[in-house]
Amino acid sequence: MSALQPFKLYTWPTPNGKKVTGFLEELKLEYPEIDYEAEKIDISKDIQKEPWFIKLNPNGRIPVLVDANRNDFVVFETAAILLYLQQHYDKKNVFGFDPATEPNDYSEALQWIFFAHGGVGPMQGQANHFNKAAPEKIPYAINRYVNETKRLYGVLEIRLKERDFLAGPGRGKFSIADINVLPWVRAYPYTSIENIDEFPNLKAWVARNEARPGVAKGVA
Amino acid sequence: MSALQPFKLYTWPTPNGKKVTGFLEELKLEYPEIDYEAEKIDISKDIQKEPWFIKLNPNGRIPVLVDANRNDFVVFETAAILLYLQQHYDKKNVFGFDPATEPNDYSEALQWIFFAHGGVGPMQGQANHFNKAAPEKIPYAINRYVNETKRLYGVLEIRLKERDFLAGPGRGKFSIADINVLPWVRAYPYTSIENIDEFPNLKAWVARNEARPGVAKGVA
Repeated sequence: MSALQPFKLYTWPTPNGKKVTGFLEELKLEYPEIDYEAEKIDISKDIQKEPWFIKLNPNGRIPVLVDANRNDFVVFETAAILLYLQQHYDKKNVFGFDPATEPNDYSEALQWIFFAHGGVGPMQGQANHFNKAAPEKIPYAINRYVNETKRLYGVLEIRLKERDFLAGPGRGKFSIADINVLPWVRAYPYTSIENIDEFPNLKAWVARNEARPGVAKGVA
Repeated sequence: MSALQPFKLYTWPTPNGKKVTGFLEELKLEYPEIDYEAEKIDISKDIQKEPWFIKLNPNGRIPVLVDANRNDFVVFETAAILLYLQQHYDKKNVFGFDPATEPNDYSEALQWIFFAHGGVGPMQGQANHFNKAAPEKIPYAINRYVNETKRLYGVLEIRLKERDFLAGPGRGKFSIADINVLPWVRAYPYTSIENIDEFPNLKAWVARNEARPGVAKGVA
């Protein structure tokens, strides 16, 4: 019998949802006592706007994590879920950095997490909206957000020029900073970006992350 | 003589810049040894895109903090700056929560910080772009982002219904979670939102934060 109760994850296979399942699958491989139950929330039917869900997350967005091991503590916002899981359940700091003993790596991981959370996610999301969902084709808006997404990929390219992963000493180590942005970058075709050949280090980083069994299972 | 060297802050009086100056002024009042030197980066002249600045922040955005007390460690992304300053220089945890001893409050603060960082900031920023800067008036885009900004204010209103501040036990305490979103919300007139009367608890929260001397000095 496992000493841990499975996490409850309310999710849907969007880039934000996949960040959390990607990390949970990596955690499971490292810590066999960890498991989770995913409950699918069909966002095309606005289940995430129903009153019971708003009580969990007033923003009405997936994913949401509920942790039975810690008195049903509720966590929303993907990046906050990653940081919560890493703090409480990655006791060896395999996937993150100890704020007390590795404060600079911890801060750099946070910097890249916020960069993705306020930049790549929202801007690529807007590109997708104007490309796929908006009722009218608005070239100005499509160009604005596709170009901004590419610019942000270029920022990641600068960071990855001399490293394998976004945070950590030397060439870095795979961490929640990587899984926090991978599901957006690898979804570039959905954003009508033909290829990412102009960002060779970013392209290699995508492949490097996708080669990890946990990531592959949780993200793909 | 102060035991601490002043922080160097590269900034400009935008909502994101004001988050950091608002917090630094609060820190100064609580910890008299703290000080900072602000160097203005005129974003209308794209100084933040110059090669020397890109070396500090490859994203080419203000604000950036450089900490001479910790070997010129560089921090970019506003929320990461707030968390860095709180961890290292708010030793009494007046403005934040200790991840080790107050893990749930710490996580809730992070959840609201990420909510603002991925929601209010980028969406209100897009509303401002389409209202003020875009070369063409695009009603669909203006409505999309103004409505989304109001929806996000409504989420804050839900959170503030029974509390004074976004994070902390009971009715909460003023923390970096508040200062992280205040400069956006109080700038609603610039976003062509006439008033926030439909969000009475949010409105009271704005006034409550603005009444703090540090916030008043750093944000206004």
